Amino acid sequence: MPHDAAISALRTLLGDRLATSDSHLDQHAQNEAYYAQALPDAVAYPETTAEVAEIVRICNTHDCPITAFAAASSLEGQHLAIHGGISLDMNRMNQVLAINAEDLNCVVQPGITREALNTDLRATGLFFPIDPGANASIGGMAATRASGTTAVRYGTMRENVLALEAVMADGSIIRTGSQARKSATGYDLTHLLVGSEGTLGILTEVTLRLQGQPEAVRAATCRFDSIEDAVNCVIVTIQSGIPMARIELVDEMMVRGFNLQANAGLPEKPHLFLEFHGSPAAVTEQAANFAEIAEDFGVTGFVHAEKPEDRNRLWAMRHGAHYATQALEPGKRTLSTDVCVPISKLAEAVTSAQQKSRALGLTCSIVGHVGDGNFHCGVRVDPDDPQALKIVKGFVNDLNDMALALGGTVSGEHGIGIGKQAYMAREHGPALAFMRAIKTAYDPKNILNPGKLLPPGNM
Amino acid sequence: MPHDAAISALRTLLGDRLATSDSHLDQHAQNEAYYAQALPDAVAYPETTAEVAEIVRICNTHDCPITAFAAASSLEGQHLAIHGGISLDMNRMNQVLAINAEDLNCVVQPGITREALNTDLRATGLFFPIDPGANASIGGMAATRASGTTAVRYGTMRENVLALEAVMADGSIIRTGSQARKSATGYDLTHLLVGSEGTLGILTEVTLRLQGQPEAVRAATCRFDSIEDAVNCVIVTIQSGIPMARIELVDEMMVRGFNLQANAGLPEKPHLFLEFHGSPAAVTEQAANFAEIAEDFGVTGFVHAEKPEDRNRLWAMRHGAHYATQALEPGKRTLSTDVCVPISKLAEAVTSAQQKSRALGLTCSIVGHVGDGNFHCGVRVDPDDPQALKIVKGFVNDLNDMALALGGTVSGEHGIGIGKQAYMAREHGPALAFMRAIKTAYDPKNILNPGKLLPPGNM
Repeated sequence: MPHDAAISALRTLLGDRLATSDSHLDQHAQNEAYYAQALPDAVAYPETTAEVAEIVRICNTHDCPITAFAAASSLEGQHLAIHGGISLDMNRMNQVLAINAEDLNCVVQPGITREALNTDLRATGLFFPIDPGANASIGGMAATRASGTTAVRYGTMRENVLALEAVMADGSIIRTGSQARKSATGYDLTHLLVGSEGTLGILTEVTLRLQGQPEAVRAATCRFDSIEDAVNCVIVTIQSGIPMARIELVDEMMVRGFNLQANAGLPEKPHLFLEFHGSPAAVTEQAANFAEIAEDFGVTGFVHAEKPEDRNRLWAMRHGAHYATQALEPGKRTLSTDVCVPISKLAEAVTSAQQKSRALGLTCSIVGHVGDGNFHCGVRVDPDDPQALKIVKGFVNDLNDMALALGGTVSGEHGIGIGKQAYMAREHGPALAFMRAIKTAYDPKNILNPGKLLPPGNM
Repeated sequence: MPHDAAISALRTLLGDRLATSDSHLDQHAQNEAYYAQALPDAVAYPETTAEVAEIVRICNTHDCPITAFAAASSLEGQHLAIHGGISLDMNRMNQVLAINAEDLNCVVQPGITREALNTDLRATGLFFPIDPGANASIGGMAATRASGTTAVRYGTMRENVLALEAVMADGSIIRTGSQARKSATGYDLTHLLVGSEGTLGILTEVTLRLQGQPEAVRAATCRFDSIEDAVNCVIVTIQSGIPMARIELVDEMMVRGFNLQANAGLPEKPHLFLEFHGSPAAVTEQAANFAEIAEDFGVTGFVHAEKPEDRNRLWAMRHGAHYATQALEPGKRTLSTDVCVPISKLAEAVTSAQQKSRALGLTCSIVGHVGDGNFHCGVRVDPDDPQALKIVKGFVNDLNDMALALGGTVSGEHGIGIGKQAYMAREHGPALAFMRAIKTAYDPKNILNPGKLLPPGNM
């Protein structure tokens, strides 16, 4: 068996918390995207930072790959052990270590999910706003620099991780950042680790900024005759400074998916899904200001949702986009794009993507965190049909190139993982060499999530 | 002359834009803090990124130190060429390259000052909010991760730099980030360079997030009987979520300085200097909510300033804190502390600092960006009096240790530079080795601002 020596040492350390049975391996080999299964050689279930450090030391000694795993909701295969070795299952490290309500922050272990955290926070009057849709783990969200529907108001994981504890490739345990809101003391290792996809270190503790629960919350949906109208309404709304808490685009095809999957009964037109946070007066003012802008773009069919259960139903539908896209063409897999462009270029990017996908006859839904300039095309494809996969990848390639030409990025929030490495040189040019230099300095044996984020050396 | 070969090659490149006369060297040897003069061997005045790259390549070839220089307003000597070599004067690279009003960002060269930028932005309805007091250069502000009075609302340079162009030690020109508001494509080199104090690369272009000019602005001052009351009022204000644009603490001694320096005529009691931004209704609501909280802490003497000239007078006085501190005891230098602590620990930290400075008989003013948990003690000292300097440094040392014990940082915004290196290991522990590893990988000959930020290897 590969990595025998590492696995033997790990079994001594962990006992039956080192698993090699088919069911454990298989469970850690799956993904929500279109990537092939990837079996690790063993699954480790650490319970403490000290154990993680010892596991990493053992793997480093024996040149054994190690890939962190928690909710497995990543969309670029970040959690897949594509070079075998150890799947490091962080789900047992899922505690809230401290809620510092007076300082509007909390300290958690990486395996806790965002929904579990918000349940724990409910009584404090605080909440953790970042919402990527999936009930992702906080560690995974930090490692992939996740964001989602509320980033337009509250920022991404980049803005909301204050401090980290991490285990580095040599087994060192480091702490970055502090409990203070800002610092100017040296290189920003917190932000270097946020978004590093487990390739520079394993996160073992995350300090998160929290927000006060808004006094008033109002959600709404509305529709437009064309996707240009919907997106131009978003652009003007953002430029006019209305502090939207959520402003999400849902195209005609996505609405059809919601109707199929969730019996939504919505007219098959482009929609915006909205949320306003603030004092009751502020929410009323924001909603009125938005409505005034939307009138100019021919908005119709406003439906408001103020009660929590109505809002939850609305956002549950939106969060079901991945499954609703599946319902559009069962039996295939979903390849999800993730470009993010400057807001002024958003209408051009979205309409072009929709037109091209239609011209190619693709089954393609579009949903977007459009307040950030970020949108996803969910394209259904059979990964075992090379001809179909080639067409879809050509579509994705053109879309990514367009985003770069417009001054944007190929990934707003899903990360690079396996699927976007070919774009790293195109997006970053000479800066890519300075990313590689950090990886080489921090993980000279390339044991931490090998094969992810950085393209092979000749790309 | 040291570095003859480098200087000769640079003269060939730059002609009379390579200066070695005493007046040029002397002008680049000064600082606002208490550090000794530090003469470079030559001053280079580049006009383009390509020239910066060629200068750095020449310095790298000849092992010649290179230290970026612009407004020289840094408070930890970051711009001083303490190991000689080249002072790289960026003041000629001071253009606004693009104002992308629709995308709420702009692209500038590093030598532009924040005031010049805001003058250029005035007609657009946008502004760049970060305000460290001094009319610093944007490049210097990015390099030191500056913040200031408005960070409580708008964040620091960390949150407001979207993208960079930089010249690395080998002369590579890299671009980091994009024009999009977020990205998840690889290691965050933008945030690695922000705050790196010119030790990892020379910034040659900065893309900044901009804000819409608020519809209404109201400034105010008010006073309290004790510094505990003032700080506790701040803590409750921040915890209650009032979106303060500015909330600045000014202690009794600082008020005395304003009275001496600016004829302020203020009662010598602890003050808060405030600003509210928003719609007219929002400003009124915020000011009323603040006043209600402040009542609980015995506030008196509210003075409001709504007209731009009145607000400017108020903030000019606040920004004159450095000079007003000088007026408290002329003929000495100012050593400025910069701790930042969790907001819940702020009253403890501020009152302890004030009491200790009084017990030691120091001339010490306290001003603070207290909404962030950040405050400065400005201590007057004669750097040529070893006994006095020892007492002051002991005070600073105790204050820094207290900040770390409270979960904070030794620098909220001034950076490490020359003066705080001794605290790097105490604040960062094992993480310091991972900062050093990046420096070694990026600048193996240690030509970029040597002697700054990272302590010597044995510390």
